[in-house]
Amino acid sequence: MLEDILKQVQNGTLNITAAKEQLATFENLGFAKVDHHRKKRQGFAEVVYGEGKTAEQIISIIQALRARNDEVLVTRVAKEKAELIQKELPELIYNEIARILYWKDETNTDRTSEGYIAVVAAGTSDLRVAEEAAITAEVLGSEVRRFYDVGVAGIHRLLFHAEEIQNATVSVVVAGMEGALPSVVGGLVAHPVIAVPTSVGYGASFNGLSALLTMLNSCASGISVVNIDNGFGGGYNAVLIHQLAQKG
Amino acid sequence: MLEDILKQVQNGTLNITAAKEQLATFENLGFAKVDHHRKKRQGFAEVVYGEGKTAEQIISIIQALRARNDEVLVTRVAKEKAELIQKELPELIYNEIARILYWKDETNTDRTSEGYIAVVAAGTSDLRVAEEAAITAEVLGSEVRRFYDVGVAGIHRLLFHAEEIQNATVSVVVAGMEGALPSVVGGLVAHPVIAVPTSVGYGASFNGLSALLTMLNSCASGISVVNIDNGFGGGYNAVLIHQLAQKG
Amino acid sequence: MLEDILKQVQNGTLNITAAKEQLATFENLGFAKVDHHRKKRQGFAEVVYGEGKTAEQIISIIQALRARNDEVLVTRVAKEKAELIQKELPELIYNEIARILYWKDETNTDRTSEGYIAVVAAGTSDLRVAEEAAITAEVLGSEVRRFYDVGVAGIHRLLFHAEEIQNATVSVVVAGMEGALPSVVGGLVAHPVIAVPTSVGYGASFNGLSALLTMLNSCASGISVVNIDNGFGGGYNAVLIHQLAQKG
Amino acid sequence: MLEDILKQVQNGTLNITAAKEQLATFENLGFAKVDHHRKKRQGFAEVVYGEGKTAEQIISIIQALRARNDEVLVTRVAKEKAELIQKELPELIYNEIARILYWKDETNTDRTSEGYIAVVAAGTSDLRVAEEAAITAEVLGSEVRRFYDVGVAGIHRLLFHAEEIQNATVSVVVAGMEGALPSVVGGLVAHPVIAVPTSVGYGASFNGLSALLTMLNSCASGISVVNIDNGFGGGYNAVLIHQLAQKG
Amino acid sequence: MLEDILKQVQNGTLNITAAKEQLATFENLGFAKVDHHRKKRQGFAEVVYGEGKTAEQIISIIQALRARNDEVLVTRVAKEKAELIQKELPELIYNEIARILYWKDETNTDRTSEGYIAVVAAGTSDLRVAEEAAITAEVLGSEVRRFYDVGVAGIHRLLFHAEEIQNATVSVVVAGMEGALPSVVGGLVAHPVIAVPTSVGYGASFNGLSALLTMLNSCASGISVVNIDNGFGGGYNAVLIHQLAQKG
Amino acid sequence: MLEDILKQVQNGTLNITAAKEQLATFENLGFAKVDHHRKKRQGFAEVVYGEGKTAEQIISIIQALRARNDEVLVTRVAKEKAELIQKELPELIYNEIARILYWKDETNTDRTSEGYIAVVAAGTSDLRVAEEAAITAEVLGSEVRRFYDVGVAGIHRLLFHAEEIQNATVSVVVAGMEGALPSVVGGLVAHPVIAVPTSVGYGASFNGLSALLTMLNSCASGISVVNIDNGFGGGYNAVLIHQLAQKG
Amino acid sequence: MLEDILKQVQNGTLNITAAKEQLATFENLGFAKVDHHRKKRQGFAEVVYGEGKTAEQIISIIQALRARNDEVLVTRVAKEKAELIQKELPELIYNEIARILYWKDETNTDRTSEGYIAVVAAGTSDLRVAEEAAITAEVLGSEVRRFYDVGVAGIHRLLFHAEEIQNATVSVVVAGMEGALPSVVGGLVAHPVIAVPTSVGYGASFNGLSALLTMLNSCASGISVVNIDNGFGGGYNAVLIHQLAQKG
Amino acid sequence: MLEDILKQVQNGTLNITAAKEQLATFENLGFAKVDHHRKKRQGFAEVVYGEGKTAEQIISIIQALRARNDEVLVTRVAKEKAELIQKELPELIYNEIARILYWKDETNTDRTSEGYIAVVAAGTSDLRVAEEAAITAEVLGSEVRRFYDVGVAGIHRLLFHAEEIQNATVSVVVAGMEGALPSVVGGLVAHPVIAVPTSVGYGASFNGLSALLTMLNSCASGISVVNIDNGFGGGYNAVLIHQLAQKG
Repeated sequence: MLEDILKQVQNGTLNITAAKEQLATFENLGFAKVDHHRKKRQGFAEVVYGEGKTAEQIISIIQALRARNDEVLVTRVAKEKAELIQKELPELIYNEIARILYWKDETNTDRTSEGYIAVVAAGTSDLRVAEEAAITAEVLGSEVRRFYDVGVAGIHRLLFHAEEIQNATVSVVVAGMEGALPSVVGGLVAHPVIAVPTSVGYGASFNGLSALLTMLNSCASGISVVNIDNGFGGGYNAVLIHQLAQKG
Repeated sequence: MLEDILKQVQNGTLNITAAKEQLATFENLGFAKVDHHRKKRQGFAEVVYGEGKTAEQIISIIQALRARNDEVLVTRVAKEKAELIQKELPELIYNEIARILYWKDETNTDRTSEGYIAVVAAGTSDLRVAEEAAITAEVLGSEVRRFYDVGVAGIHRLLFHAEEIQNATVSVVVAGMEGALPSVVGGLVAHPVIAVPTSVGYGASFNGLSALLTMLNSCASGISVVNIDNGFGGGYNAVLIHQLAQKG
Repeated sequence: MLEDILKQVQNGTLNITAAKEQLATFENLGFAKVDHHRKKRQGFAEVVYGEGKTAEQIISIIQALRARNDEVLVTRVAKEKAELIQKELPELIYNEIARILYWKDETNTDRTSEGYIAVVAAGTSDLRVAEEAAITAEVLGSEVRRFYDVGVAGIHRLLFHAEEIQNATVSVVVAGMEGALPSVVGGLVAHPVIAVPTSVGYGASFNGLSALLTMLNSCASGISVVNIDNGFGGGYNAVLIHQLAQKG
Repeated sequence: MLEDILKQVQNGTLNITAAKEQLATFENLGFAKVDHHRKKRQGFAEVVYGEGKTAEQIISIIQALRARNDEVLVTRVAKEKAELIQKELPELIYNEIARILYWKDETNTDRTSEGYIAVVAAGTSDLRVAEEAAITAEVLGSEVRRFYDVGVAGIHRLLFHAEEIQNATVSVVVAGMEGALPSVVGGLVAHPVIAVPTSVGYGASFNGLSALLTMLNSCASGISVVNIDNGFGGGYNAVLIHQLAQKG
Repeated sequence: MLEDILKQVQNGTLNITAAKEQLATFENLGFAKVDHHRKKRQGFAEVVYGEGKTAEQIISIIQALRARNDEVLVTRVAKEKAELIQKELPELIYNEIARILYWKDETNTDRTSEGYIAVVAAGTSDLRVAEEAAITAEVLGSEVRRFYDVGVAGIHRLLFHAEEIQNATVSVVVAGMEGALPSVVGGLVAHPVIAVPTSVGYGASFNGLSALLTMLNSCASGISVVNIDNGFGGGYNAVLIHQLAQKG
Repeated sequence: MLEDILKQVQNGTLNITAAKEQLATFENLGFAKVDHHRKKRQGFAEVVYGEGKTAEQIISIIQALRARNDEVLVTRVAKEKAELIQKELPELIYNEIARILYWKDETNTDRTSEGYIAVVAAGTSDLRVAEEAAITAEVLGSEVRRFYDVGVAGIHRLLFHAEEIQNATVSVVVAGMEGALPSVVGGLVAHPVIAVPTSVGYGASFNGLSALLTMLNSCASGISVVNIDNGFGGGYNAVLIHQLAQKG
Repeated sequence: MLEDILKQVQNGTLNITAAKEQLATFENLGFAKVDHHRKKRQGFAEVVYGEGKTAEQIISIIQALRARNDEVLVTRVAKEKAELIQKELPELIYNEIARILYWKDETNTDRTSEGYIAVVAAGTSDLRVAEEAAITAEVLGSEVRRFYDVGVAGIHRLLFHAEEIQNATVSVVVAGMEGALPSVVGGLVAHPVIAVPTSVGYGASFNGLSALLTMLNSCASGISVVNIDNGFGGGYNAVLIHQLAQKG
Repeated sequence: MLEDILKQVQNGTLNITAAKEQLATFENLGFAKVDHHRKKRQGFAEVVYGEGKTAEQIISIIQALRARNDEVLVTRVAKEKAELIQKELPELIYNEIARILYWKDETNTDRTSEGYIAVVAAGTSDLRVAEEAAITAEVLGSEVRRFYDVGVAGIHRLLFHAEEIQNATVSVVVAGMEGALPSVVGGLVAHPVIAVPTSVGYGASFNGLSALLTMLNSCASGISVVNIDNGFGGGYNAVLIHQLAQKG
């Protein structure tokens, strides 16, 4: 692209002021490519973090997104706020457990996904974070299979699903309290595991610190970790990996 | 015992100075009973923490113990120090991995133990602490079975031994890094589990803090925790529980 | 693969020993036994952690439990929630201080307990956690004796009860602030002590961290620790130990 | 119990479907598959963590591995220890910066890798960890491109390589001190980023805690984190992802 | 000044009691000079920290300030409190985002500022703190240019403004979450950077600790740091530096 | 004193330059009084913290002290360093356990002390810190009684000395590990208790943090705390209090 | 007293059952002396910590105290709770800033105090804690002088009062934020300083941790520290010391 | 500069390949300006952090610097390493206390500095860090005045120098232990204060954390903070500010 601009300058079809303007858009450094790549690969341009934004702010961001492209993903939206937004933008869908507000073009069928992402969660209290991961992945176009309430204290429940988890492309493993589940899953599978600690627990869980440290210190290989309660991050990372597996 | 002293004072067989002396021993408050109970039940009077004591200090403590009773257990003794002590007291046995120096009356056969204590360890690096627990328990008269290198990242190795661990009276479960093993064992067994975090690990293990928090937050019931690297504490607690199971 | 093995056994191309070897299996490792053992030994199948569950969720769990067995123990239930549940399930009993909701078959008399569990608490503010331990132990079928308001700053109050505490099978010692009580009790008794730190305190108590560290570092032997405010864990561990003492 | 079932199958009193139901087993849940999968996909069975193991222990582990398969990867091996091992096993190669000891079958050419892994490092002091990641990935069969000394305080050095980093399949980004590099890289690329905090720094870096927290809190999407100084983990995760991209 | 007093005592124009009183004002030690200097250079005497003070207390402090000098700056004033104060003192201006209440003599034109302070902020959530810095600097008489929403995850947005930021006298850089922005800005500019961490974030941001550590460990030179959310401190330091640049 | 100077200026017996010089010594603000008071009350001018100072530096400081007054107290002096200093200054006495180097005028008999300071220590490992407190107090002229090895895990050993401790003017209570001793002593006595946490312990003692938090959270009244291992601080505070009790 | 009991047993004026009862009261170990000493010396028996107690509980405790002795001191009582208690017990006085509820016998004039306690506070926000200290000391019978708003950032305000603070028997120094005031006061005075950190501050003050650490690390001698916000502890310690100074 | 390149392309004096190469140097984005600005204003291009680099690495970096410009500043160089480097590059000067190795063109006299930087240090143990700041500032061309051993526990020593410190352009204030000095200096001066916490201290100083927190929480305005022991950062920031004051 840089070469194109220079050639036009050379042959006089582009004046210097216009050339400077175009170069100033950083096209020549490849920044803008990022967004093009994202959109092209994921059918998705931008994710909105809803926490701390008013309904009005979110509405105006969504309207800008809708003007440019088809799809919308807003995380951390409380129910009341979602309802205010939906009044204005009734085509949006709200998932209350995941606290996600989204719109996707269901008629878009060229994103046929091979394989699936496993979202594995330790306890029922971790559901909220697990669903944030799962819905994120689904809205971004991946198939998801859920394996909930399979905490390590009842290891047979997890083992019952071992084969189906092993056959996934990538796993998102969500756990609070002692956060041991990713280690066990990591030992069972041969694919990447994204570990998501949650703030579920009390006392010496220190709001998720215990689960976070557990996951960072996992003796199983192939595990990487995102922030406490960051279900979105878990889902997003899994989608990036899952899409790589589609490409080949 | 208080009553005995008072009766002797009453009937004049004990003068007041002698009575005061005896009462000052706190027999009347039951303190001394503790030591009698301990010795009687455990065949053991006192455990010596060797760290920070010189060979000379340990020798003189052992000589005092030997004068009063039969058995000796000194923990955290480095090899060089142990050799110095053994020169003076050649009947002592030294276990290098557990760093324990001890003497027990092997001819004493009235401590026939029913059942056994399971000492379970995650990785080979945790061996030192696991052996401190195991040797402690054995010196204090309990039978021990060892289950080593059964960390959660290879859960099948643990499950292979599940039944034998289930049949123990009590388990001591030793793990560093993420420290997840006690949660899994706790979910498999119906007996008390003593969890021992170790300082094995690096980075965000923070010298055992990670494993400690994991164990305190275990979602499995029936788990209690001792200090980081406190193999002795794990073994000692297990012995107390194991002996209760003998008594009935 | 399982089917292959079985077919070969069926058609005689594989003998039983070889088949067994291949099937290093699940069933023979005894997962399901766990629950049977639990129920059989403790007269109790499952404990429900009420925090973060709605009244509706708790009701449906209880109904499932009642369909399968006789008894129910739900911890961390706020008063309002308990009342909603009791409307639906009026046979349940609610203990407001312990915040426990339970039902037990009082006509079941074959759980005659020898000895008792001592529940010892430092201050009146620790009562809530101490009662969670005590009620848990009682609902699970053990006899409990309570020793409250015996903090270390008035050591004579504790010593007054020393003998009765010494005669227990196991002690649960509950303390907040500096959390020193388990060390003192541990020095007085010859049985296992389960230490329960509480979040009672302010400033540098850091919500129970101070008491937790104190207990983990106890210089008395025979002490193990559960999570901050985990009265249930203290009571449950004590019951496991107390039942071992019955078995002999 | 297993024997009973097999006998009944053998003598025809139990059909295969019923037998399978009874044997809700181990084998069919695929534990052993894990290792087969690993070997098959990665051409690699097991990685040895060298820290805390003696030269003798490592030699015997390697000999066992060599007996079973072709390749060896031992991390965290100090130079002196490596030399001792190489005396015994001269075919092993030692990389001093990465502190990795390995052997791979260079004649094995069926692992033709499309694309490459970008290993990006902030400062020269982070080299040791970055090389642990890079060598790990190379020994495990991936192509690696290195982008070193491109810390955020001189952002133009990073941008100079932006396009080449963008074209990688996955990036491993290594940084100590403030650990900001993964956020910037994460904003430039559309592929997964594995962030590796290092303990490089002093004072308030708290041995890598600062960099770790920075990475966990990254406002860029698509970043997941491994333990402090865990170059191996970064490389290993990248290989898992890179191999998925080959498969399609 | 000390010399003046002593001379007056010497020549009898000042009696000893009056001399002692004057000396007691510490004029001779230069304390009072501080306030004179401040007022003279900054046109400003004192800043009021509004948090934890009642509207009544703030009103009476402002009235005292107004009696002595022209200008007022009260930080951390909630909207409701500000309205109560404005009822009594309607000439005060309230900036809701910055939560600052102030009055300045707009007719005072002798504070012509050369150059400007750059206030740079990572995300929209950091706006509140950035505005506290910006408004503080403006009320204290400096020109401010704002560069918002230029976080490191979209580095091109920052680079678009690079030259204008480079031309500032001093930068105040505000960021939460991973707090990496000051490092990148510090690498782009040759002037002092005041870094202000914010408590924006969740989980392992630990209320701003993550951003604080990042900034303290910055590998860029020329960065110093103020307390978490201390927008005022950032602005105030920048003004001190900016005024030095005016003086020459 | 200020008045004196001014009068001399007034009546011409002091010129202005000399007056300024004297005033500059801050006599008029009372600073210098501090040192006079200290010396007069304690027979002691300054304490030297020996850690991080070379033998040469300490020697020159002592020589300066000896030129001005009679007594010397240097803390934290390693044995080798002390020997180097003693070669130069052979009249100094070195206490190896307390690591204190001192000289006091034994012929000075007008410091007859009523009562005594109790120095109470939990374990033999705390001896070093306890002796730093005791020797400090003795060198500064107070009588000290030592009560060692009276940790809370064997409460009867402490109670044996209860009356003698109660009769002290003030107690210095030294403890590591769980640090519970000051709470128990605080409950037994009616005088001030200075608590000194030590770094004795391992694992979750976190180098004395555990003992420090325990002491700060003590439920006993009348306890205040100094820094970890600060035996000198404990002894010094006790001396200040003990001297107040002499004054009446 | 033990001797008395034994003599009565010996001469038959006391039977064994009655003797055992009396001995069980621990008179012979001196416990009860504590309370007698306290009451006698301080005119005060017990202090009630009001936090977490209901108005009803506090009323019944006060009634018990009033039945036994004359005076009452309840700390940490919110205004609403105090009003409920005062309805029942109208003779009690409530200090709203200190949140203390008390009653003292003003006719009791034999506690004539020589000297005074200095209560020194850094900022107006620390007033609440400073008043808890001051009112505690006054109710317990000591004279108090207050020195407020003398923080280190305006050192001349503190120095203005230097002499009056120096003349106190003991100082209680209260400070939040950076907590530097006790160090400066400690350098000015020759008497004991009780330092009280407060939770005043934000961001990196971590609820008083910053001030607490500052005070523990003070380079001034003669400073000891109580828990964060523990104004009562500061006042109580000061009273103990002040009373010692009366005794002589 | 961008315009120049484009014009040359337009008029054919530059071919497209050469143009691309030049544009790739980022001149058009202003990055390189940074280094030009730095060099021009400070007479200095780059500072080398010597820690963790070998003598050989440092020598080759210096040789590269000397080839490009006149001056050299290497921090954190141990004495032995410095001597090795000086053998090769004998014109370099080494300051052992500051551990800085440097070369500056003393004949360069056009950097006439108005005013001076005050480097203020609390204790003699902080000297090393203070000198790192002072030497850094001097090598970078600023005049420095040193005020050492003026800790807050002897406030009169600081006040003695108050006026001279007030007259500086900017202060660098270095302190360990409680780190209170910057607050006091900040209250005395009207110029910016750069606070440098040091790791001097023990116990609860937690290697400088205490001093760091103190400084971040300072109640004095105009203070900003650098990393623990970062004397270089303190000096460098001061130079940036000091140079701004020269410019006007």
